[in-house]
Amino acid sequence: MKTTHAPIRTRYLSPVDIALILRHQGMAQALRGMHDAIHADYLRWQDFDKNARVGNHSPLGVIELMPIADDKTYTFKCVNGHPGNTRFGLPTVMAFGVMARVDNGVPELFSELTLTTAVRTAAMSALAAHALARPDSRSMALIGNGAQSDFQALAFHHLLGIREIRLYDTDRQATDKLMRNLQHADIRLVRCASVAEAVRGADIVTTVTADKTNATIITPDMVEPGMFFNAVGGDCPGKTELHADVLHGAKVFVEYEPQTRIEGELQQMPADFAVTELWKVLQGHQAGRTHSDQVTIFDSVGFALEDFSALRYMRDSARALGVGQDLALIPAFNDAKDLFGLIDVMARTPADTVSARTRVLDEALV
Amino acid sequence: MKTTHAPIRTRYLSPVDIALILRHQGMAQALRGMHDAIHADYLRWQDFDKNARVGNHSPLGVIELMPIADDKTYTFKCVNGHPGNTRFGLPTVMAFGVMARVDNGVPELFSELTLTTAVRTAAMSALAAHALARPDSRSMALIGNGAQSDFQALAFHHLLGIREIRLYDTDRQATDKLMRNLQHADIRLVRCASVAEAVRGADIVTTVTADKTNATIITPDMVEPGMFFNAVGGDCPGKTELHADVLHGAKVFVEYEPQTRIEGELQQMPADFAVTELWKVLQGHQAGRTHSDQVTIFDSVGFALEDFSALRYMRDSARALGVGQDLALIPAFNDAKDLFGLIDVMARTPADTVSARTRVLDEALV
Repeated sequence: MKTTHAPIRTRYLSPVDIALILRHQGMAQALRGMHDAIHADYLRWQDFDKNARVGNHSPLGVIELMPIADDKTYTFKCVNGHPGNTRFGLPTVMAFGVMARVDNGVPELFSELTLTTAVRTAAMSALAAHALARPDSRSMALIGNGAQSDFQALAFHHLLGIREIRLYDTDRQATDKLMRNLQHADIRLVRCASVAEAVRGADIVTTVTADKTNATIITPDMVEPGMFFNAVGGDCPGKTELHADVLHGAKVFVEYEPQTRIEGELQQMPADFAVTELWKVLQGHQAGRTHSDQVTIFDSVGFALEDFSALRYMRDSARALGVGQDLALIPAFNDAKDLFGLIDVMARTPADTVSARTRVLDEALV
Repeated sequence: MKTTHAPIRTRYLSPVDIALILRHQGMAQALRGMHDAIHADYLRWQDFDKNARVGNHSPLGVIELMPIADDKTYTFKCVNGHPGNTRFGLPTVMAFGVMARVDNGVPELFSELTLTTAVRTAAMSALAAHALARPDSRSMALIGNGAQSDFQALAFHHLLGIREIRLYDTDRQATDKLMRNLQHADIRLVRCASVAEAVRGADIVTTVTADKTNATIITPDMVEPGMFFNAVGGDCPGKTELHADVLHGAKVFVEYEPQTRIEGELQQMPADFAVTELWKVLQGHQAGRTHSDQVTIFDSVGFALEDFSALRYMRDSARALGVGQDLALIPAFNDAKDLFGLIDVMARTPADTVSARTRVLDEALV
């Protein structure tokens, strides 16, 4: 049983690696690549072993685990949601994730997912919009101008052809930030004084606010025939953005129904309120939008499959660009049944602080 | 909202760091320290937000997530179980985990848990044995002499006073390995030709086999009055070690009943088969062993609380020894609402391969 084998290495992608990838590709290509990766996985939805995510909630926020697997690859994301974090200069949403082999459990990739999630969520919104928005959509209201909003704006611009974006946020500086970041994009930006003003006349309405409350940001009087609502911010128990009557008057689409019933806008609705899982539309089993006056809603909460696609996309992009480093996260066994023997092998040097640190550095980095 | 704050650093503990800690402390102190950490957390069992773990199963094994939180600290472990891995020189069980702050979601610690889990599982067995084995126990049968067995042997020796261990494994080389690793310990080691021979006359029987089958390693004819069974290897749906009649004739103790009903020896039993959660015994609410002839069983599957304790113990031990390094897993925000602006800041250097690699190295390591 003394099989000597190559040490197990786990590829680590830091936020800097992901920033380099995004910068190298440019946002248009990155969003397109991410969109295509998610689309490809939705077309084989049935191949995945799916779970609703597991959250630990506190009065200040939530930390969630989102596992999923096909017959070859397992991934999970760990992500928090703490709406009050910006008061301390901390992001509302931080994330990281792992990709492992199903046949032997080896973790092959450990990656930041804070930046990556912003790209994947925006790409997912665009994927839904292709099926649910009017094809001639050119203007979008963007309610909530925080950390996710820049990515939403660019996804709808690059992937859907949106040319005008109408902005509103209760925090004026958030809108300043968004306008500054988008100043070189070929998008007409209109700062609005209220949600109603931003929504009026828009083809698409994207809500991406952070407050963990049952807010009614969109009320029935704002709804116009043919609108598509991309409801991103109602994504956690006790956190909604649309008035229930907005859902009653529309055709509602979801990612994974068991999860959205708990977390989405849907948490306000009776258990038998009809919804359509988006994969059925993307695979051609059910209709998306059926006429131009129809009001459609994507009740987006974020599903583990999208992070599976995102990890796969970033792994491949990192390989192509040659970024990332290797961690020795799993001990290097000589005899797989001799874990105990490894302790002495690995700790061979005297454990005084300085040499220990040095040795760790040598070991953990290739 | 332009609060500048210190970058978020996540402490990384590699297998080498953990090996240095174990070597520095010695196994007796490490097992004692881990035991005390787990014990302290079991004494405040009610403080924790608990979940049964979430597993993705395949024909070859399982990958599981085990989250838990109190009001200050969240942890999870990711662990696989692939019994066939040793054929490829890979360990059956590999693990890592994260500790994060409940109030803001920041991941403060990312640690290997392959070595650590072996120590924590053995320490947990000893904790259960204190309540469930006869106080005068001096001999133990150890069925299954693979990766976890050395740690079990040393835990029962150092923490329970076990002086004789009777060894059996279907793989003779596994027993060779175990005897070699324990040669300097003050333990009488007896190699046995069968399970029955190993069990005969033992005060404690520890089963720690890896096959993912409903095995009947312990049959009713082997049971003697007063024995304590520490059943470690039946820890996953379809994976058991004890004949159902062994459970019928004993008083059975578990970690977290909802999880053990699915994963433990208990999966063979009717849903109303009575068990006692161990925390009730440790807190004095219910009796453990009540007389010296009683047969007791710890139906151990491994619970997230023990990994919470283990991460806490290793974090503190690493601090004391000054090992570990910092990862920049979370992007360093200047404005928490400006995630997009970070991409340019972080990717400031030209993204050619060599300089990218160098820059990543500088960034990810302090």
